[in-house]
Amino acid sequence: MPVLLSPPEAANLLPVPGVRLGVTEAAIRKLNRRDLTLIELAPGSRVAGVFTQNRFCAAPVQVCKQHLPQGDIRALVINTGIANAGTGEQGLAASNATCDAVAGLLDIEARQVLPFSTGVILEQLPVEKLVAGLPGAQAALQADGWYEAAHGIMTTDTIAKARSVQVNVGGKTVTLTGISKGAGMIKPNMATMLGFLATDADVAQPLLDVLVKEAADLSFNSITVDGDTSTNDSFILMATGQAGNPTITDAASADYAALRAAVVELSIWLAQAIVRDGEGATKFITLRIEGGADREECRKVGYAIGHSPLVKTAFFASDPNLGRILAAIGYAGIADLDVSRLRVWLASAGEEVLVAEKGGRALSYQEEAGARVMQEAEITVRVDLARGEASTTMWSCDFSYDYVKINADYRS
Amino acid sequence: MPVLLSPPEAANLLPVPGVRLGVTEAAIRKLNRRDLTLIELAPGSRVAGVFTQNRFCAAPVQVCKQHLPQGDIRALVINTGIANAGTGEQGLAASNATCDAVAGLLDIEARQVLPFSTGVILEQLPVEKLVAGLPGAQAALQADGWYEAAHGIMTTDTIAKARSVQVNVGGKTVTLTGISKGAGMIKPNMATMLGFLATDADVAQPLLDVLVKEAADLSFNSITVDGDTSTNDSFILMATGQAGNPTITDAASADYAALRAAVVELSIWLAQAIVRDGEGATKFITLRIEGGADREECRKVGYAIGHSPLVKTAFFASDPNLGRILAAIGYAGIADLDVSRLRVWLASAGEEVLVAEKGGRALSYQEEAGARVMQEAEITVRVDLARGEASTTMWSCDFSYDYVKINADYRS
Repeated sequence: MPVLLSPPEAANLLPVPGVRLGVTEAAIRKLNRRDLTLIELAPGSRVAGVFTQNRFCAAPVQVCKQHLPQGDIRALVINTGIANAGTGEQGLAASNATCDAVAGLLDIEARQVLPFSTGVILEQLPVEKLVAGLPGAQAALQADGWYEAAHGIMTTDTIAKARSVQVNVGGKTVTLTGISKGAGMIKPNMATMLGFLATDADVAQPLLDVLVKEAADLSFNSITVDGDTSTNDSFILMATGQAGNPTITDAASADYAALRAAVVELSIWLAQAIVRDGEGATKFITLRIEGGADREECRKVGYAIGHSPLVKTAFFASDPNLGRILAAIGYAGIADLDVSRLRVWLASAGEEVLVAEKGGRALSYQEEAGARVMQEAEITVRVDLARGEASTTMWSCDFSYDYVKINADYRS
Repeated sequence: MPVLLSPPEAANLLPVPGVRLGVTEAAIRKLNRRDLTLIELAPGSRVAGVFTQNRFCAAPVQVCKQHLPQGDIRALVINTGIANAGTGEQGLAASNATCDAVAGLLDIEARQVLPFSTGVILEQLPVEKLVAGLPGAQAALQADGWYEAAHGIMTTDTIAKARSVQVNVGGKTVTLTGISKGAGMIKPNMATMLGFLATDADVAQPLLDVLVKEAADLSFNSITVDGDTSTNDSFILMATGQAGNPTITDAASADYAALRAAVVELSIWLAQAIVRDGEGATKFITLRIEGGADREECRKVGYAIGHSPLVKTAFFASDPNLGRILAAIGYAGIADLDVSRLRVWLASAGEEVLVAEKGGRALSYQEEAGARVMQEAEITVRVDLARGEASTTMWSCDFSYDYVKINADYRS
């Protein structure tokens, strides 16, 4: 059960002019499962992306990194079941063969195709099954395919993640629709996380390249479920340019600001949805770290709290075990942290409770107040490091029996 | 159920001349629980220690760091129940009052007392209960008190951890007896981990200071249960000098080598015992990382594997999910790691299986062989980074339902 997240409704997902999507069952690892998704982009579309930092980056990620800089991307192909990671030369050949097959069907070049895979690592991709499924995906291509695509990229996700927003840019209504998938192995630098966001805005390639990094940094790279960084993570931003707005070329322009705000908001929603549907999650935790000397140390503190199994199990138990939070702050790696100056609050929608100051429990703190906040499904941990002006916001979830169950049983 | 670890037998724990230990029930947090341990050292004893790196270091750790450098330590006092961490000025006063009370009883100075606490953080230590219990602990002092003391320092440990060894140093039989406690929150830089090792060897203070760091580095700082570093960790090495061996003053001497080997071996045993009794542990994992450019990068890889919840749940499930291991190696933080060169083996006592090479699954690898190894209670993951000559050995455990249960319920 995701934390305060509902399944998407097909009617609320808006087509993005210039984008068509098709999904099929290719039996890549299991039968009767939508496991192959094709996304076709109209000529003239621009694409930017960010990828996992894992040194064991999957074969499709390696291929994406070759194809993307050449520009003129016209298709994306996504399979689930097998991640095609840790598969050596054979895996690379499989990803290239996938691109060849898509190119043949769509009458484009293989270098115009970006491949994505998610699922079990260290097993070879049955590329012949994938290729055999492609005509079905092609036949299913439709502008209204986002709902299907959101389901087609799911692995251990319990519900699909998709959303549309519209924004006025240069006097035109611009549409943005995005989909994402988690659910475990989510951490900084993009865990087994796929995100695809398309807009019909007309925006110059250099700005799109900057925007995808900024948006990823504020969203997908600010979430953590279990601290593991996967081999396959990718976040792709596509702009078809069909909205008719004047091409955005100036990072200081109001048009860019409007587009940027919409992309960032949607990216955060898609990233948060992954945390809300984190494996076994029962609580959605916002980590608001303020007063840092720089953003990096704020992120260190956020990750220390967000990754701590002891903190996460306490949240699962709705136990205001503040000591574990303080201990996590203490080992976050800020060598000259003065613990006597920092303050910590626990907050829910209804109230904010000062829990720690002066190196210990706040005098005003009542355990009942902490316990009340911890009962909520959405909880904010706010930390003031009292060292400077930097801040950051990150999102995490708790750690439950079901996390162990899901990950102990995943391959069986 | 600890992994291949039996409770100590009182008869196998050897008194260390110059050391007496007494345990009592002080009702610090719960009734009917041995929660207060006093260790008395004969005049002329030398003591060295290492402490947690957590910035939220507990009040007793702060006091230890003041007292230890002054030398001439004559007593250690250890309470469980309350960790006296995150307790501000009041906590510091409580630890100082504890030392005052011990000093009064033993007719020594407060600065000659080292205090230790373990248990719940962020709650004040009921120092009056502790002080009221001290005469009982003093009355119980005996040279043969190690078995009781091993029980007196336990928190969530399921069994006591204690062992003695003897070694010939300078023609004399030297005795070493040690005790330790875990069990969760165990990681680098010493988690909620207490270790006390005493010997009657005569060794100069400067060598003792070096030895405690070396031994901690190879033992307590090479284990991880859940990646959390606690506020209270301490490892103390005591040498009473009553064995009659010529005072060891030369780090290059055979006497020092003999003593060092025994201290390191016993420290590793005590540290491994903590992992074997890790909260909910069902498997004991040895991480052997070889071929690193330096030891630090080997440790990074070891911690990445040892901390990964995905790897740990796979071990719990006896699932040879090698992909998760490779992914962890990939995100360990070695920027220029060439994954096509590294090799990974899984091994049990009976066999060693090459599982990965050339960036993927080894051609010779049979899943049945991996599954066979994963069924064992003790498993070694050996990684050859193929970058240099450095290596390291670390120890970890798996991640089970019971870990969540223990840590979600701990305070209730």
